[in-house]
Amino acid sequence: MIKVGIIGGTGYTGVELLRLLTQHPQVQVQTITSRSEAGTPVSDLFPNLRGHFDLVFTKPVPENFADCDIVFFATPNGIAMQSVPDLLKSGIKVIDLAADFRIKNVAVWEKWYGMEHRCPDLLDEAIYGLPEMNRVNIAKARLVANPGCYPTAVLLGFLPLLEAGLIDPQHLIADAKSGVSGAGRKASVSSLMGEMGESFKAYSVSGHRHWPEICQVLNTYTTEPVNLTFVPHLVPMIRGIEATLYGTLLRDVSLEEISLSLVQRYQDEPFIDVLPAKSHPETRSVRGVNRCQLAVHRPQDSNMVVVLSVIDNLVKGAAGQAIQNMNIMSGLPETTGLNGVGLLP
Amino acid sequence: MIKVGIIGGTGYTGVELLRLLTQHPQVQVQTITSRSEAGTPVSDLFPNLRGHFDLVFTKPVPENFADCDIVFFATPNGIAMQSVPDLLKSGIKVIDLAADFRIKNVAVWEKWYGMEHRCPDLLDEAIYGLPEMNRVNIAKARLVANPGCYPTAVLLGFLPLLEAGLIDPQHLIADAKSGVSGAGRKASVSSLMGEMGESFKAYSVSGHRHWPEICQVLNTYTTEPVNLTFVPHLVPMIRGIEATLYGTLLRDVSLEEISLSLVQRYQDEPFIDVLPAKSHPETRSVRGVNRCQLAVHRPQDSNMVVVLSVIDNLVKGAAGQAIQNMNIMSGLPETTGLNGVGLLP
Amino acid sequence: MIKVGIIGGTGYTGVELLRLLTQHPQVQVQTITSRSEAGTPVSDLFPNLRGHFDLVFTKPVPENFADCDIVFFATPNGIAMQSVPDLLKSGIKVIDLAADFRIKNVAVWEKWYGMEHRCPDLLDEAIYGLPEMNRVNIAKARLVANPGCYPTAVLLGFLPLLEAGLIDPQHLIADAKSGVSGAGRKASVSSLMGEMGESFKAYSVSGHRHWPEICQVLNTYTTEPVNLTFVPHLVPMIRGIEATLYGTLLRDVSLEEISLSLVQRYQDEPFIDVLPAKSHPETRSVRGVNRCQLAVHRPQDSNMVVVLSVIDNLVKGAAGQAIQNMNIMSGLPETTGLNGVGLLP
Amino acid sequence: MIKVGIIGGTGYTGVELLRLLTQHPQVQVQTITSRSEAGTPVSDLFPNLRGHFDLVFTKPVPENFADCDIVFFATPNGIAMQSVPDLLKSGIKVIDLAADFRIKNVAVWEKWYGMEHRCPDLLDEAIYGLPEMNRVNIAKARLVANPGCYPTAVLLGFLPLLEAGLIDPQHLIADAKSGVSGAGRKASVSSLMGEMGESFKAYSVSGHRHWPEICQVLNTYTTEPVNLTFVPHLVPMIRGIEATLYGTLLRDVSLEEISLSLVQRYQDEPFIDVLPAKSHPETRSVRGVNRCQLAVHRPQDSNMVVVLSVIDNLVKGAAGQAIQNMNIMSGLPETTGLNGVGLLP
Repeated sequence: MIKVGIIGGTGYTGVELLRLLTQHPQVQVQTITSRSEAGTPVSDLFPNLRGHFDLVFTKPVPENFADCDIVFFATPNGIAMQSVPDLLKSGIKVIDLAADFRIKNVAVWEKWYGMEHRCPDLLDEAIYGLPEMNRVNIAKARLVANPGCYPTAVLLGFLPLLEAGLIDPQHLIADAKSGVSGAGRKASVSSLMGEMGESFKAYSVSGHRHWPEICQVLNTYTTEPVNLTFVPHLVPMIRGIEATLYGTLLRDVSLEEISLSLVQRYQDEPFIDVLPAKSHPETRSVRGVNRCQLAVHRPQDSNMVVVLSVIDNLVKGAAGQAIQNMNIMSGLPETTGLNGVGLLP
Repeated sequence: MIKVGIIGGTGYTGVELLRLLTQHPQVQVQTITSRSEAGTPVSDLFPNLRGHFDLVFTKPVPENFADCDIVFFATPNGIAMQSVPDLLKSGIKVIDLAADFRIKNVAVWEKWYGMEHRCPDLLDEAIYGLPEMNRVNIAKARLVANPGCYPTAVLLGFLPLLEAGLIDPQHLIADAKSGVSGAGRKASVSSLMGEMGESFKAYSVSGHRHWPEICQVLNTYTTEPVNLTFVPHLVPMIRGIEATLYGTLLRDVSLEEISLSLVQRYQDEPFIDVLPAKSHPETRSVRGVNRCQLAVHRPQDSNMVVVLSVIDNLVKGAAGQAIQNMNIMSGLPETTGLNGVGLLP
Repeated sequence: MIKVGIIGGTGYTGVELLRLLTQHPQVQVQTITSRSEAGTPVSDLFPNLRGHFDLVFTKPVPENFADCDIVFFATPNGIAMQSVPDLLKSGIKVIDLAADFRIKNVAVWEKWYGMEHRCPDLLDEAIYGLPEMNRVNIAKARLVANPGCYPTAVLLGFLPLLEAGLIDPQHLIADAKSGVSGAGRKASVSSLMGEMGESFKAYSVSGHRHWPEICQVLNTYTTEPVNLTFVPHLVPMIRGIEATLYGTLLRDVSLEEISLSLVQRYQDEPFIDVLPAKSHPETRSVRGVNRCQLAVHRPQDSNMVVVLSVIDNLVKGAAGQAIQNMNIMSGLPETTGLNGVGLLP
Repeated sequence: MIKVGIIGGTGYTGVELLRLLTQHPQVQVQTITSRSEAGTPVSDLFPNLRGHFDLVFTKPVPENFADCDIVFFATPNGIAMQSVPDLLKSGIKVIDLAADFRIKNVAVWEKWYGMEHRCPDLLDEAIYGLPEMNRVNIAKARLVANPGCYPTAVLLGFLPLLEAGLIDPQHLIADAKSGVSGAGRKASVSSLMGEMGESFKAYSVSGHRHWPEICQVLNTYTTEPVNLTFVPHLVPMIRGIEATLYGTLLRDVSLEEISLSLVQRYQDEPFIDVLPAKSHPETRSVRGVNRCQLAVHRPQDSNMVVVLSVIDNLVKGAAGQAIQNMNIMSGLPETTGLNGVGLLP
């Protein structure tokens, strides 16, 4: 049994970790913390968990994690970096679902996140937790930076085409759309249903924190830094990300060949499902599950390839991927506890 | 392994049966039929099932069910009664998720369903598949009539209070609200998102087919026929039923006592979860799972008790309850394959 | 031209007042205040108003209202009572869209609103602004308490039947459902789309502030205080209230007769639209407009009458009704500026 | 008074024409047809229109239009072309909200619409009814082809930049998202709320009928045919289109200069509202009104300009634009009857 702690359990990634871990046969959740809800039974806050957990939120003090093998941070950005060094010293492995360890360049991180980094020396050691590109390193890691939701959807679509040299790294566009749970579970006017419901908009077009994260990874696949335009949008639904990715083909290659490059790249990946070319993946097909569905198009046989990529932002884009990483770090079969079926309709 | 067949697999209860059965360790789905989609892989129609099933829709001909132990009908009303007699003769057990065998009185059935019944002689034998009131009979049944979604939510709330003699059978009101998946997956203008979205209305107020079904069951708990007013409404969401039930108290009994009567009635029921009095159950807490959450109120200490009851109409209100019945009929632990957690948010 | 001021313009009733007043030929909005947004152009906060208003939010200081004929309070409860006495002294009429002047009994108000009333002496003078019952008094009023959204929907449905002596005041049930804009535009976790979307629940069942308000009005139509059970629910949509009202018939009266009592009661009312008996009014039919649609049912010819009532909570339930009151108080035709058509779909 | 006829009044553009025309002081709707609903009062089908129209649907026979000045076709594609020649001969002007007269090249039309054109000789005469580019011709037209919803949103964003020579016509991407009312009001499984709700997907990526329409217009602004990639998506909301447009800058031009080119291009346009650069227009701000809101971005000062464009697909994308065209064709001020404010929230 892996003994697990969750720091920051009152947000959507926290409750999603709990939901998914109830299905995991090798995990025991030892402790879950919340500064504001300490003393409250978890199932009072999240009645879907009634009967599945007897946990009570505790204060995030070190002694509560003493016997954990691994700790998930489901906290806002800037929290994990305050206690990760101590946890690592105690021999506890860490998976941070926030952004504290995703960016290697501390200056870039501090610019985009607007605060000073507390343990920049750990940035090198931290492994970017996208198993489909980084599995070997994750297996050996003490500290995993779980990828952002948009980066997961975008990278999984672009990587095979960049690896295969099919598209021009200087003309990449990612038009991404997210359900509102991506904005988290904190009180804010802009996230009210009265504000987000029955409406659609782009946001942060001039600059979103996931842009440098995506670029950093893409750049490891190219000789020159990529030129990526990334535009996120808000969809009036709760879960799901769809990324529509545009690449300019470097040579005349058939749609079948393009599709094949994805199929082959992911043939051994349990959580990546390449649909037949010209399919239209829907976010609902992956609702609640740790899966990315992809499909490619080449409209009007032009020089433009379009990749469609869907994930559940709270699962493959957060809690599910974190558990996938935990499985890898723990030597378990990667799919342990992650065999659910998308909730459709 | 129980060998299962599903007749009518293209509707929402069909795909939900498949989704839930992927999690069932003792079931093998042998065949799934669809007149219109015969030849189509199931996962082409429902991409959430990709990788979980290799099934292809077949025509609903008898030989396709020859080796099944149990067959689920997930068809429109009036279909099951055409072939159930033959299936039973072949030694196959049947669970009908439609309404063909729910009403004991054939004249009542024919009035409300507007057609002639094909095998009225089976109505007596058919067991109403609400395990929380009928478990023993279900265990011995060849033919189970799976309850309607509204009846499930309404009956589970009213029964304990009627059994305890707390409320007046002559003044029962059930104000019920359902997500749109209750209307099924057939092309119709009234079920378009353009018609149902961002709006709320009552429907079938002057008479809904679930009214005689609910009354029939309630009447078994009372000496006089009950006087029930049942008003269904349509909620602009996909899954979930909430029933707000009003009963007039026959004597001055405290809220705690009322709540206790529910708690005690359901203390051994794995799928009924009585929340503390004055709670407000939400449909999302039971989304995707075979669970009913209940809570009671007595506003202003008046003579009126209010019971709040929520289920997922496609699970405890249809496919999940059908699998619960299958478990009982097959001698399996009742919760086998039904341990999921509600998808919140 | 009526010179109008709006105090508290950043909430949903504030922007709705502005939207509706752009269509009013006899009104000039002089000033709109917001403590938090003073200095911000109104159309920066609400881009739908771009090109329709040049207004800038100002601080709510008396001099900003000096030349107003009438002032609307679109503030949280407890704000209006702080400055209404001064405004009245200055000869300015007031319409309070909040609850400060709705309850006549100061002890009841203080119990339900949890604060001390600042000007209880004005409670007697304040006129309850439901024009369909109070038009003559409104015309003479200096201070109008604009009704709550739920009370508007419930009262308009019950009043004709109580007036006609058709139903028993001791057995009234109002099962009401509201869109989320009813919760206002303030930051709160419970109003996030992630919390309210795709789910349905009852709330405040044990006691909601609109219960004493509804009772107070109903009691003026009966000899004994009524026995009303009022249960509000939250619908995952933005605008609209539907109230399903249950009354026990005192005598055997046909559905046609019941329906006729509503038709006759409202035959001269421009904003009340009685649909044929057995109709099912939808909230979308009145979206954005100052209209209440009603229909009656008598299911199974039982002793129970069901009235269905729909309004837009922000219009007939708030801003539209306030403008209707303003028209009456100003001697204008009551429908001035209120002739829109519901936004369907 | 302009005497107006509407052919095909049971769809969403039909009811939207009626809704908007109730606010038009110079129009009298003489007749509205529906083959399937002939004899039904319009307000039975659309209760939001109760009290605003006494119209009854009639059969679409010529004599019903005899005294009309102008006729709107709100029919499926392929219907208008069957009777437009006769109407024009009778001296009646026509505005077709469907696609029959949008494409000049009959072969292209027949390829994309899959049928033979009945009156290809009229294609040359038909004027493409986008007033912001074609006002003078519309004023003189007998036959106006009202633009598609996507083309309206896309063209209004791209045209100023192409006219100003700022972007490369060989690298145009339009990533467009539409509410579900764009799919119309016909029974179909794919448009059920159970299918479209709470999910997001791209569709028709390999080829959508609006692609040749957009290209045809863009080509009139360039020397070479443009290379446009157009990807439509479905948003789980009812109304609204957002188009995110990507253009590659031909020279280093500041964001301010880009924004200014839009501001200047549209300075006299009553229905085009250019927001400050870096704004994020929301579809709700234009809900129910004949307005396009635009804003530009240049993320990370790269060579890519992003234009955000929002309209209500049923208004500026259909019925509102049709009325705008009618005003122009009739010599009325262009804004007559089109002064509403977007329904926010």
